[in-house]
Amino acid sequence: MSNPLPTFDDVARAATRIKGHAHHTPVLRSSTIDQRLGAQIFFKAENLQRIGAFKFRGAFNALSRFSAEQRRSGVVAFSSGNHAQAIALSARMLNIPATIVMPEDAPAAKIAATRGYGAQVVLFDRYTQDREAIGKRLAQEQGLTLIPPFDHEDVIAGQGTAAMELFEDHGAFDRLFVCLGGGGLISGSALAAKALAPDCEVIGVEPLAGNDVQQSFYQGKIVSIPTPKTLADGAQTQAAGQITFPIIQRDVSQILAVTDQELVRCMRFFAERMKIVVEPTGCLGLAGALQMGEALKGQRIGVIISGGNIDLPKFAELLSR
Amino acid sequence: MSNPLPTFDDVARAATRIKGHAHHTPVLRSSTIDQRLGAQIFFKAENLQRIGAFKFRGAFNALSRFSAEQRRSGVVAFSSGNHAQAIALSARMLNIPATIVMPEDAPAAKIAATRGYGAQVVLFDRYTQDREAIGKRLAQEQGLTLIPPFDHEDVIAGQGTAAMELFEDHGAFDRLFVCLGGGGLISGSALAAKALAPDCEVIGVEPLAGNDVQQSFYQGKIVSIPTPKTLADGAQTQAAGQITFPIIQRDVSQILAVTDQELVRCMRFFAERMKIVVEPTGCLGLAGALQMGEALKGQRIGVIISGGNIDLPKFAELLSR
Repeated sequence: MSNPLPTFDDVARAATRIKGHAHHTPVLRSSTIDQRLGAQIFFKAENLQRIGAFKFRGAFNALSRFSAEQRRSGVVAFSSGNHAQAIALSARMLNIPATIVMPEDAPAAKIAATRGYGAQVVLFDRYTQDREAIGKRLAQEQGLTLIPPFDHEDVIAGQGTAAMELFEDHGAFDRLFVCLGGGGLISGSALAAKALAPDCEVIGVEPLAGNDVQQSFYQGKIVSIPTPKTLADGAQTQAAGQITFPIIQRDVSQILAVTDQELVRCMRFFAERMKIVVEPTGCLGLAGALQMGEALKGQRIGVIISGGNIDLPKFAELLSR
Repeated sequence: MSNPLPTFDDVARAATRIKGHAHHTPVLRSSTIDQRLGAQIFFKAENLQRIGAFKFRGAFNALSRFSAEQRRSGVVAFSSGNHAQAIALSARMLNIPATIVMPEDAPAAKIAATRGYGAQVVLFDRYTQDREAIGKRLAQEQGLTLIPPFDHEDVIAGQGTAAMELFEDHGAFDRLFVCLGGGGLISGSALAAKALAPDCEVIGVEPLAGNDVQQSFYQGKIVSIPTPKTLADGAQTQAAGQITFPIIQRDVSQILAVTDQELVRCMRFFAERMKIVVEPTGCLGLAGALQMGEALKGQRIGVIISGGNIDLPKFAELLSR
């Protein structure tokens, strides 16, 4: 029997827990984009969050709820990306030992950064070993608590605080565009939207090559796909979660899919006109809004920029294309 | 006989005039840089200002003070950089005709952007013609009001509002690092500092190749140099102004000079760790703080990031070095 789904109360409690620890990130505007769309666009800049992504919110919220016993034993997470850094930094701030399971071919800079936050890194071969199994074994053998990257109620509640801040700072919107991988950010955002701006349509945006949630949404059941090839490495999930999907089904209005080329165009726009570094996954929201185009005329639109973690050589290469 | 120097009252009045028109820009933090310096660093992100630089503040303030007659006739400015865009956008917002004198070999994108703001662009040959003379002739013949890029009391007062916001939002600092070209930003910042945080040392930072104000400061008179070769194109001025220099002499504690290599390192740091695009000139403040290093231990430090306007190909090239 599964637990009840998290609610807006969980998001509000998460906001209290992370206050003073996570950044209350700024909301940025661009008159260029407003003119192009004939709308008012409010960008919630989670690339300016600690560790460069919204993931810090969920990780810190989840670790804040650990019992004394859990704190002593420690946390384990498997991730090569933003979730790993988020758990590592949150654990250090809360004085909890952290073990991160990462693929041995992850960028050296990411492994070094995770170690830099004081986490123990366990490397595995992604072609012959199963990271989830390694994580679960470590959890069992050493009594560690496993925090998955998105399908966890405290993680979802924490991620919802970004949209909550956006609504509290700028009032209601007609539509909110949110990037979509495993669904942690969008399900938390939808909980916030339904409570604070019930008429706001929440729209998820996936990479076209990895539109598993779009398929799932319209088929009414979780569809699983092979790891998609896309620049949006934060949205390379194979399937939505057992907790995130029912929330998406209930509270999200529609799901769009965009090409990598559209993401690169948005990345260039963010750098050139808004002076911010946004990773491809973080461009999904704006790419979705641009795809809707005309339909947004005269509306107030929120867009969540999920993160800005991209290796500089890759970033430079994509800007030069 | 010259006019009296602008005061903090002028800065405070400018703040009222630009309110709701300029962005109240966010202040960003980085735990990485705090740890490295053993200090608390507060970055005022004027790269996230309208037109991507603090220059909008001074331009809008100056144009706001035009008489009905001046508004009808229009404004003229000579600049290939941020001041041109700032005047063009402010003029459009205030419904004032604008003429911008730009070198004919300025980047096509900048000329297009200036025209995009509705300004009339007058091109000149920078090797055979004098832009200042052209600007003055246009002013005289057509009754336009000339707004120079830094040596003007309303421009200085407007630029001071960035530091004013920083002090109002985050209290006093031990030191404030400000990039330094012609001195508009630093003289306005110094007026704000002396009024709001009298114990705060204001430190100017110039490119080493163009350290005319450093020379002037220590010689006690305005030194003029040939146009310096530096990546910091916003600080390629040949001499401080008749209004900015006396304020700098009176209210600035010291002036540092940094190499282009130090600027590029800071630019990479801003992109990689703080997820923002900063132009070389905008890196001067941080480069100066890093040069002081140990001396900042335990202090509260303000750094003004002046702007983020750099062509993407150039930016990509510098990131890849």
